[in-house]
Amino acid sequence: MAFIDRGNGLNFQGAHILSINQFEKQDVTRVFDVADQMQPYALRKKVTRVLEGAILGNMFFEASTRTRVSFGSAFNLLGGEVRETAGFESSALVKGESLQDTARVLSGFSDVICMRHPDEGSVAEFATASRVPVMNGGDGANEHPTQALLDLYTIRKELAATGRDIDGLTIAMVGDLRHGRTVHSLCKLLCLYDNVKVVLVSPKELLLPAELIEAMRSSGIAVQTSEDLAPSIADVDIVYSTRIQEERFGSKQEADLYRGRFRLNQAIYTEFCQPNTVIMHPLPRDSRADANELDNDLNNNPNLAIFRQTDNGVLVRMALFALVLGVVDTVDKYSHDIRWFNARA
Amino acid sequence: MAFIDRGNGLNFQGAHILSINQFEKQDVTRVFDVADQMQPYALRKKVTRVLEGAILGNMFFEASTRTRVSFGSAFNLLGGEVRETAGFESSALVKGESLQDTARVLSGFSDVICMRHPDEGSVAEFATASRVPVMNGGDGANEHPTQALLDLYTIRKELAATGRDIDGLTIAMVGDLRHGRTVHSLCKLLCLYDNVKVVLVSPKELLLPAELIEAMRSSGIAVQTSEDLAPSIADVDIVYSTRIQEERFGSKQEADLYRGRFRLNQAIYTEFCQPNTVIMHPLPRDSRADANELDNDLNNNPNLAIFRQTDNGVLVRMALFALVLGVVDTVDKYSHDIRWFNARA
Amino acid sequence: MAFIDRGNGLNFQGAHILSINQFEKQDVTRVFDVADQMQPYALRKKVTRVLEGAILGNMFFEASTRTRVSFGSAFNLLGGEVRETAGFESSALVKGESLQDTARVLSGFSDVICMRHPDEGSVAEFATASRVPVMNGGDGANEHPTQALLDLYTIRKELAATGRDIDGLTIAMVGDLRHGRTVHSLCKLLCLYDNVKVVLVSPKELLLPAELIEAMRSSGIAVQTSEDLAPSIADVDIVYSTRIQEERFGSKQEADLYRGRFRLNQAIYTEFCQPNTVIMHPLPRDSRADANELDNDLNNNPNLAIFRQTDNGVLVRMALFALVLGVVDTVDKYSHDIRWFNARA
Repeated sequence: MAFIDRGNGLNFQGAHILSINQFEKQDVTRVFDVADQMQPYALRKKVTRVLEGAILGNMFFEASTRTRVSFGSAFNLLGGEVRETAGFESSALVKGESLQDTARVLSGFSDVICMRHPDEGSVAEFATASRVPVMNGGDGANEHPTQALLDLYTIRKELAATGRDIDGLTIAMVGDLRHGRTVHSLCKLLCLYDNVKVVLVSPKELLLPAELIEAMRSSGIAVQTSEDLAPSIADVDIVYSTRIQEERFGSKQEADLYRGRFRLNQAIYTEFCQPNTVIMHPLPRDSRADANELDNDLNNNPNLAIFRQTDNGVLVRMALFALVLGVVDTVDKYSHDIRWFNARA
Repeated sequence: MAFIDRGNGLNFQGAHILSINQFEKQDVTRVFDVADQMQPYALRKKVTRVLEGAILGNMFFEASTRTRVSFGSAFNLLGGEVRETAGFESSALVKGESLQDTARVLSGFSDVICMRHPDEGSVAEFATASRVPVMNGGDGANEHPTQALLDLYTIRKELAATGRDIDGLTIAMVGDLRHGRTVHSLCKLLCLYDNVKVVLVSPKELLLPAELIEAMRSSGIAVQTSEDLAPSIADVDIVYSTRIQEERFGSKQEADLYRGRFRLNQAIYTEFCQPNTVIMHPLPRDSRADANELDNDLNNNPNLAIFRQTDNGVLVRMALFALVLGVVDTVDKYSHDIRWFNARA
Repeated sequence: MAFIDRGNGLNFQGAHILSINQFEKQDVTRVFDVADQMQPYALRKKVTRVLEGAILGNMFFEASTRTRVSFGSAFNLLGGEVRETAGFESSALVKGESLQDTARVLSGFSDVICMRHPDEGSVAEFATASRVPVMNGGDGANEHPTQALLDLYTIRKELAATGRDIDGLTIAMVGDLRHGRTVHSLCKLLCLYDNVKVVLVSPKELLLPAELIEAMRSSGIAVQTSEDLAPSIADVDIVYSTRIQEERFGSKQEADLYRGRFRLNQAIYTEFCQPNTVIMHPLPRDSRADANELDNDLNNNPNLAIFRQTDNGVLVRMALFALVLGVVDTVDKYSHDIRWFNARA
């Protein structure tokens, strides 16, 4: 199931990207190296037309502006076109059409499909009948592999700035660890690396599932758990914060008990964190005053990497498209300088 | 009203495509020949940029993922851009704007418009005020000309594989023949051909409208009617199955009376059909167990043409765009090889 | 805040377009001159690829087919790609995400953003955190600067046809002047010009806000008010009509009192207007019989400019994109002839 065939070279071409379980360490490294290669295009130093004439079917059967636009822009940045659905027209599915029928039809309209769907397993089922590669843009509580990859890619880049590596990483994961799809996927990816330490900071009700803790320990990760933020983030490279929805608690009293205990702000950061500790979050971040997340007073902290995460998402998605469509080595061949004023430069 | 001017050559350029009544036999042949020519582009053997810079206004004032995306992809495959509306923003129409005003405005934004609208006659009314060619993507129960054309194009291709032709065709149409817009349009198109036999298989309540039967007979088609599927499909080239919605029957008892009598599965096919009988359906197909349609056990039957129909839809729509915008002879001139790994090949 | 730096040349590059208050007279003139230059591309005489590879983020957090498609088509006409949201997926905003966070994320996906949002001031707030130029596509009752610019551009073009100019203009504004965002913005723009006369024709309840009247008078505009259409339009260059929604009146009796008094039709035009008086409207126009607006019997009047207004909107938006992205001088360099049959020519 791994992408890189140890016998005869790279093997991403034509593959579906459905689950992070498909990735071995060298596959991840390959994606990240290609993502690095995409940087000049994402930063608008250059334009490539390598996918000129190719069509992405961006099929979001559940609304998600940022993930949908990120996939679409990544494809445009490689020179391709995007046809899409934004979550409100699943009429054929409502009329009893099977996912396989939908896949057989839609895969006649494009060269690669990105799909989001509210049902777990739906994207994999869809892929069985698709004639073109399918990328999982999120299937309910199950998988969102590009989010996990962009998170780990961000970790790699942030640590590289100070000479560190994913091997040897210490990371605190904070918030609702029970329901957070992105945290679960990131934990699985971390199992591929050596000398990793994970500190799980959450209310008792919102612990990481036991089988995930077990899987991490089996793969050699040192796992600690905690109910208190401040002492848990003293010696970590990364604080990965997630949303806690109030309604996850058993009662208002229960919620009040934890109120503010998982919220990171600049004062706590200054008092407890190392100077280079990187702050991450899968976004969106709840900016309302009573949210249990990241305070806006962190916005000027140079280690706040939350927007670099979404920027990196474009690079990782470009890399996956380039690998699956086999254009990694020809991206530069079909490139030219940009012709407009680049406000971002 | 026919597209081909017998005096001085082809005459599709700049025409609206509103109704299959506009088509004479040689017009249909012309569209199908051009559709054949589009095959290398749809199969991703080549890329054409002939419509580079052209804009399709894909105005779906009623949701329809597959038809909308099929039109959009067809335009992209010719090198053009697509701007669109997906059915949820008809605010201006709600504020009392006339269809003519809408047309006058929207036709300033694109080079050709495809329009779907829930009201019968709306697309033709819109076209009267449009400054660019308009294609009917479906106007309520009235017309859906590209569906009828893709159905007949599929018939032509499927029969050609065994040396047969549309002239001389025997076809069984099955299901709700009273309300099925696609069946009505296909019947009209068949009137253009010679030695055609049509077997109409439906419950009494859901007979094909009498005036359509009359029109077919007047044009020389041999028409039979039946309430039983099995004996009716013994000697036909094509079985064209359509959805029967339970609520079309007068009562639950009435529906029960017919249950399963119009459902085609592999066992019935094997027992009653000729070996090369082609199975068609306008899709979506209801795959739930109690649906009165095509069984999933037909999926491995090589004569199941239902997904080739939707693939052919892209070819027919490409052909119509190429004809209306006058680029049939220059499509190849602006082409180049594809630059990515074609998973479909 | 003005766009043209008197010291060292043009200064639109990389600027946000948020409010007509940003424009001085020479800025407006510059936009209009560039809009004139865009004409061959909008009329499909030529195709330009100058923005090939550039991405517009067309973020409509409130539905608006015509404005959204106008911006998107303008960008396509310059060779760029469009990624968009059409008003139904503001899920992240609902989850408490700040506009600054949204801006920081979305500005990573495109080279320029056009945004519509129901809240006043939202687009300006969004712009503070965006890393790419932002254009205001309408923020509630506050601003819609491209509409005001296209209206004034239309006035310039219509008057130029008979040798007149914006300086010296006499214009009647008719209808709901209290709530009409487009009228307010146009009034502000007119303050930049000399020898302008404005006749305000509205029910007492729907007068133009006093501070706007005051601002016009301070800048030298001669302002009159009236409750009667016919005598007010005898000596004007332009009649700018707007919608009066019945529910704006205090009561049905009040509405009945004014019924028909602000509706312009051909008979009134012939009796009261000068032969070259130009008729404008921001559209959509309510074409139902009891609407207080422009009658359909004006449709053949050559001075009805309402559809030229929306056509001009594409030119003005192309001009703004070209100015902000710094491609005014290179649009022609990357152009070629169109390759398809131009039905509009």
